[in-house]
Amino acid sequence: MGGDKGPHITIPAAISAINQLPLLHLILCGDENIITEELSKQQAYKDSQITIYPTSQVVEMDDKPAFALRSKKDSSMRKSLDLVKSGQAQACVSAGNTGALFATAHYVLKTLPGVERPALISSLPTHDEEQHVFMLDLGANVFCDSDVLYQFAIMGSVMAEETEGIDKPKVALLNMGEEEIKGSDHIKQTATRLINNKEINYIGFIEGNDIFNNKADVIVCDGFVGNVALKTCEGVARMVYNKLQLTLSRNLMTKIMGKLLTSTLKKLFKPLNPDQYNGASLIGLRGIVVKSHGNANSTAFCSAILEAVKEVERQVPEKIITKLGSGLLVCSK
Amino acid sequence: MGGDKGPHITIPAAISAINQLPLLHLILCGDENIITEELSKQQAYKDSQITIYPTSQVVEMDDKPAFALRSKKDSSMRKSLDLVKSGQAQACVSAGNTGALFATAHYVLKTLPGVERPALISSLPTHDEEQHVFMLDLGANVFCDSDVLYQFAIMGSVMAEETEGIDKPKVALLNMGEEEIKGSDHIKQTATRLINNKEINYIGFIEGNDIFNNKADVIVCDGFVGNVALKTCEGVARMVYNKLQLTLSRNLMTKIMGKLLTSTLKKLFKPLNPDQYNGASLIGLRGIVVKSHGNANSTAFCSAILEAVKEVERQVPEKIITKLGSGLLVCSK
Repeated sequence: MGGDKGPHITIPAAISAINQLPLLHLILCGDENIITEELSKQQAYKDSQITIYPTSQVVEMDDKPAFALRSKKDSSMRKSLDLVKSGQAQACVSAGNTGALFATAHYVLKTLPGVERPALISSLPTHDEEQHVFMLDLGANVFCDSDVLYQFAIMGSVMAEETEGIDKPKVALLNMGEEEIKGSDHIKQTATRLINNKEINYIGFIEGNDIFNNKADVIVCDGFVGNVALKTCEGVARMVYNKLQLTLSRNLMTKIMGKLLTSTLKKLFKPLNPDQYNGASLIGLRGIVVKSHGNANSTAFCSAILEAVKEVERQVPEKIITKLGSGLLVCSK
Repeated sequence: MGGDKGPHITIPAAISAINQLPLLHLILCGDENIITEELSKQQAYKDSQITIYPTSQVVEMDDKPAFALRSKKDSSMRKSLDLVKSGQAQACVSAGNTGALFATAHYVLKTLPGVERPALISSLPTHDEEQHVFMLDLGANVFCDSDVLYQFAIMGSVMAEETEGIDKPKVALLNMGEEEIKGSDHIKQTATRLINNKEINYIGFIEGNDIFNNKADVIVCDGFVGNVALKTCEGVARMVYNKLQLTLSRNLMTKIMGKLLTSTLKKLFKPLNPDQYNGASLIGLRGIVVKSHGNANSTAFCSAILEAVKEVERQVPEKIITKLGSGLLVCSK
């Protein structure tokens, strides 16, 4: 039911996903009438791959997280997370209210044993078209101390290794300089701990201008910094795109070139709004949760579903437990 | 002497500046022989607008700030700041070691009465070609509490008003969401204080994707976040530029278009590396200090000189004192 356009987007995405993956079974949580109606509009698909799970409430995009948690217990969002909790579903994919999804997922699923905080992680484009860089946290936590950042480094390394098949992912800490003396105490402490963990391929500090140049496979920062960096990336890309369009509309010759370049430019700029074309995952929980952009189209929402499938197949939460266990920090919680 | 190319860049920039401003007098601090030699290569200029101030040391680009402060007391950097301190110069412009410049400027000049911390501020491009947005702090301070952020908002407002002539500049706080409940406690406290200061046109929180769209004239954040945002902007712009070049080199038709668009693209992307084409100012000190990019060419270094002149003419430090005095926070220091 979530996202700006609800089932109008999520149902076609669901059908596209099951048509690509014959073993995938999707449970569609939400208003039964609306879902049935949307399904009736779709092309051929196997009924057996879909179950409707009727719910009576919807978390609105402007609901406060605490309100959603307290008063929307029969919402599509809450129920889909309950299904993950009870083991009836293996992952939850939502384009709904981000804050409510984080709060509810954290409350319902709880963190993995030993994990202090969940993190929002997504892959971003790089100079090399074949490669991505994972960045976390992108906004699930305002501030992160060195315990939390250290765990994020391990979780990010697992994600890159499992979902992109990168051997010994290069892990870096985002900082305001590359020198060891730069940055806050908690970043320096995290660096020291990562140097001592031989399981992690820690490569040092990285600056904002090096996020996209394949120096690192995983970049770790607190949620405030990650959120600002991600959104700045989006803002710059939009500004460049607009300025380019304006430049190309200046005279007849540039207008013709603009026409010829339209699809090329769209293809170039699309990945620069990363959460629009891909899902971001909330990792560190006892279950898989993928957040699609509220504004996602059905291709983007389908990508988010496929991302969730990948994490289920690669058993990301289990791998995180193993990796954390072999690291220095395992507290029994 | 500073920057990657030293007097080879700074001397032509100096000559260009004095030729543009007949009332400008520049004191060139550094190695007398090198300066004299570089000056002899220049086109006509008025001798009376230039003084050479011989110094025996140079702060190297990799000198630690503390080392520069302690052991380079006869460096071009130190002496130029000493001249500002003694009133013999009205501003210092340097392309040298950033950390050393901050530390030395802070030590030599001290902060303005009542100012807690100096900030690094620069103007960034926006969607509107005629307008800029000022952002601070860009890296002079790792962490800033609400006292410091509040003062930065006031100082940024003065800069925008005085150097760009913006009436009642719109001031925003960079945050991970626009809602009042978002972000850290110190950001929320800063917001409360800015709402209560009727002298400041505070417009609320702003997200990374809105930095460039003219919602705000001044954006305030701590140095870590500002540095990451600025450098991410630089990184994205470089990636887009490279990908665009690659796209345009794919076939004969795109190659021809690429050739035709070369100068247009260069013009478009140049302002996206803001500190390369313009100086960043260290404000909040008892004197004017402008930092040019280490990699600046002579046009960029000349811009930094002209920026310093503008701040002298508009009496930015004096205006900051006045504005801070009329604000809520005046502590006698």
